[in-house]
Amino acid sequence: MIALSSSHRSHATTVSLRHPDGSPWSGAEVTVRQVRHAFAFGNIGFDFVDLAAAEVGIGSNGPHVFGGADRDSAERLVELWLDVFNTATLPFYWAGFEPVEGQPDTERLLAAARWFRERGVSLKGHPLVWHTLAPDWLRGRADEEVEDVVRARVRREVGTFAGLIDTWDAINEVVIMPVFDNEEHQNAVTRLCRRIGRIPTVRLAFEEARSVGAGVRLVLNDFDMSTAYECLIEGVLEAGIQVDAIGLQSHMHQGYWGEERTLATLERFARYGLPLQMTETTLLSGDLMPPEIEDLNDFQPPTWPSTPEGEERQADEVVRHYRTLLSHPAVEAVNYWGITDRGAWLGAPAGLVRADGTPKPAYDALRRLIKQEWWLAPTALRTDDHGSVPVTGWAGDYEIEVAGEAHPFTIAPDGAPVEVVVG
Amino acid sequence: MIALSSSHRSHATTVSLRHPDGSPWSGAEVTVRQVRHAFAFGNIGFDFVDLAAAEVGIGSNGPHVFGGADRDSAERLVELWLDVFNTATLPFYWAGFEPVEGQPDTERLLAAARWFRERGVSLKGHPLVWHTLAPDWLRGRADEEVEDVVRARVRREVGTFAGLIDTWDAINEVVIMPVFDNEEHQNAVTRLCRRIGRIPTVRLAFEEARSVGAGVRLVLNDFDMSTAYECLIEGVLEAGIQVDAIGLQSHMHQGYWGEERTLATLERFARYGLPLQMTETTLLSGDLMPPEIEDLNDFQPPTWPSTPEGEERQADEVVRHYRTLLSHPAVEAVNYWGITDRGAWLGAPAGLVRADGTPKPAYDALRRLIKQEWWLAPTALRTDDHGSVPVTGWAGDYEIEVAGEAHPFTIAPDGAPVEVVVG
Repeated sequence: MIALSSSHRSHATTVSLRHPDGSPWSGAEVTVRQVRHAFAFGNIGFDFVDLAAAEVGIGSNGPHVFGGADRDSAERLVELWLDVFNTATLPFYWAGFEPVEGQPDTERLLAAARWFRERGVSLKGHPLVWHTLAPDWLRGRADEEVEDVVRARVRREVGTFAGLIDTWDAINEVVIMPVFDNEEHQNAVTRLCRRIGRIPTVRLAFEEARSVGAGVRLVLNDFDMSTAYECLIEGVLEAGIQVDAIGLQSHMHQGYWGEERTLATLERFARYGLPLQMTETTLLSGDLMPPEIEDLNDFQPPTWPSTPEGEERQADEVVRHYRTLLSHPAVEAVNYWGITDRGAWLGAPAGLVRADGTPKPAYDALRRLIKQEWWLAPTALRTDDHGSVPVTGWAGDYEIEVAGEAHPFTIAPDGAPVEVVVG
Repeated sequence: MIALSSSHRSHATTVSLRHPDGSPWSGAEVTVRQVRHAFAFGNIGFDFVDLAAAEVGIGSNGPHVFGGADRDSAERLVELWLDVFNTATLPFYWAGFEPVEGQPDTERLLAAARWFRERGVSLKGHPLVWHTLAPDWLRGRADEEVEDVVRARVRREVGTFAGLIDTWDAINEVVIMPVFDNEEHQNAVTRLCRRIGRIPTVRLAFEEARSVGAGVRLVLNDFDMSTAYECLIEGVLEAGIQVDAIGLQSHMHQGYWGEERTLATLERFARYGLPLQMTETTLLSGDLMPPEIEDLNDFQPPTWPSTPEGEERQADEVVRHYRTLLSHPAVEAVNYWGITDRGAWLGAPAGLVRADGTPKPAYDALRRLIKQEWWLAPTALRTDDHGSVPVTGWAGDYEIEVAGEAHPFTIAPDGAPVEVVVG
């Protein structure tokens, strides 16, 4: 058994209440409570795009290219989603986002982005450049034109969503990108990457995104956890491309990695000194995918039920996996891939909620971790002579209630002492 | 069945004989014969190092770190080796070459290098930097010191052997280098590579070698044929490191790759526009290694015999493999890894000659290809009014005999017409 601790994420700090003249509020009865984690506990927000758009009068654009529950079930899911997660990944799969050239699905995604932001949820866009789901209309274009169109698409999305989406998977799955061949006709992005090389393709995505979004956080994302991804990262960094975080997928359809493999993987990728984002995390509550499948997309049985035993296993593995990830100081985000089995990727029972809308044990277990074990429950305290109370909590947003009024404060990642002026 | 052709390597050219005054030797009876291939048909020369050294009075340095037949059998092997191969790889495994710091095995290797050059054989040194067989005495050194010692070693070997060894595997197996852990105590080169990164380690090897050997050909060599190696190469090239050729190992102890996989591999690595060297080619004439072995070094049975059926299979596969490799225009060298089963790497029956010194069918088959099918046999011709004869042959060294005297000429890689002045 590996000893896992996320105690480095918890800070014992001091919150001091002051009057506007600087004098301490001593001897006051206060209640301190946590409002939000700074750590990105994320999930996909695909299921709520139609719902959010409908609220501002925009209709659905039809079936989605990758998951997303229907609108009726989405309404019931909202509360469950918002009670655990603080960061949503929004879908920018190009073939679905712009099925006809020049007619991007911008308004619907803008509505969804605003809907989440109004609910205190941070956003990540996924992905700006990817070979899979490159639009069909791009395939017939000449080489140079493809590059121009890809560059323009990156600038358009980052620019349009500036102020709403502050993190992007700038480019996805570059290790396989130029040699991807699990398709009938070669897509244009694979052709581009094969022609100009992986690193120039990465540079293209990062530079264009950076050119219109000075403050955005740009992630290099991949499913390939082998040394190939290390080699790619080293080449990208050596070429001077500014990567803000390394994205590691972990769709565990073929089985839970376990603590040892997970920690070894984190160690290998943490050695570049960049934050790690676990961008796509899934654990199944049903039968596993056979181990011989290489491209997960090649296994999509007609039905793939969630089972009672599977749900117990999933709950256990979800908790173990989050404990493992949060124990490593380099991890700054964990994004689970799917709130519900309805419309889940590949039809797999990867959701935290069953298709009928009821939470699985994994949902409850994850909620307990994030909102109880790792969360500061409302705590009644009395300030000392300096107007101070001791508070131990994770970095994030808090409030201190005094004389019937709540005042916000923040515990910073370094756990520095906090002053709250109340007047 | 894939149609394989190496016809692009054969040039229909014209050789014109001239008197010193420029007038044509017309109507002369001549014989044209090939002397040497320009293409590097290589093999390891490990087996002859002791033999060559003994000829100049230098004794053996004891058991070798990697293969090498004993001296008695080496004497019988010389003729077989020289009849097929024109390029020898010499061993510079650091732990064996310099078992005690400051006492390198230079004189013995210089004797071997001279021995081969006197016999018209080109040389390659293998390898300058590698984590496996890094010397034990290096392990205790501080980080910065390790880097200095590695740099000095690269300069020393390339400088000392200048004019004898014109090609080096500058660095070996970088994909796995920083994460290599199949050893009890971490070696110093893995530690260095992990600390400074793969690309700086590659740069170190290439820059130091280039600094003392302006004309040397430097090869990046790896056994990893996956996308990881592609990613490494792209990073190295993007970083501006001048790589002269990409080295691809192909120890097929677990089975022949087949034409399709071989061609696909060549295509993937040829797209960088650099020549390809097949640096380490083996095909067994006995049982194959089980497929589940990951590090070939982990399988070394007490006996591993060559069998009659295995020898037939090996002969067939050697011919098919060489045909496949030579069909690809990017391939400039094929180095077979072992002339004899005696002292062969891992004890495997990978040699072209049995341990008892008799040639296997693969030897005869390979000789037929290289010295018959792809070779211009002595051909009697009569010069025309311009003193010319048509000659069709591969790039390489030839001679034309006229009036009882042989005169050398060369067919260049572009097959340009040749003039020979005879006076």
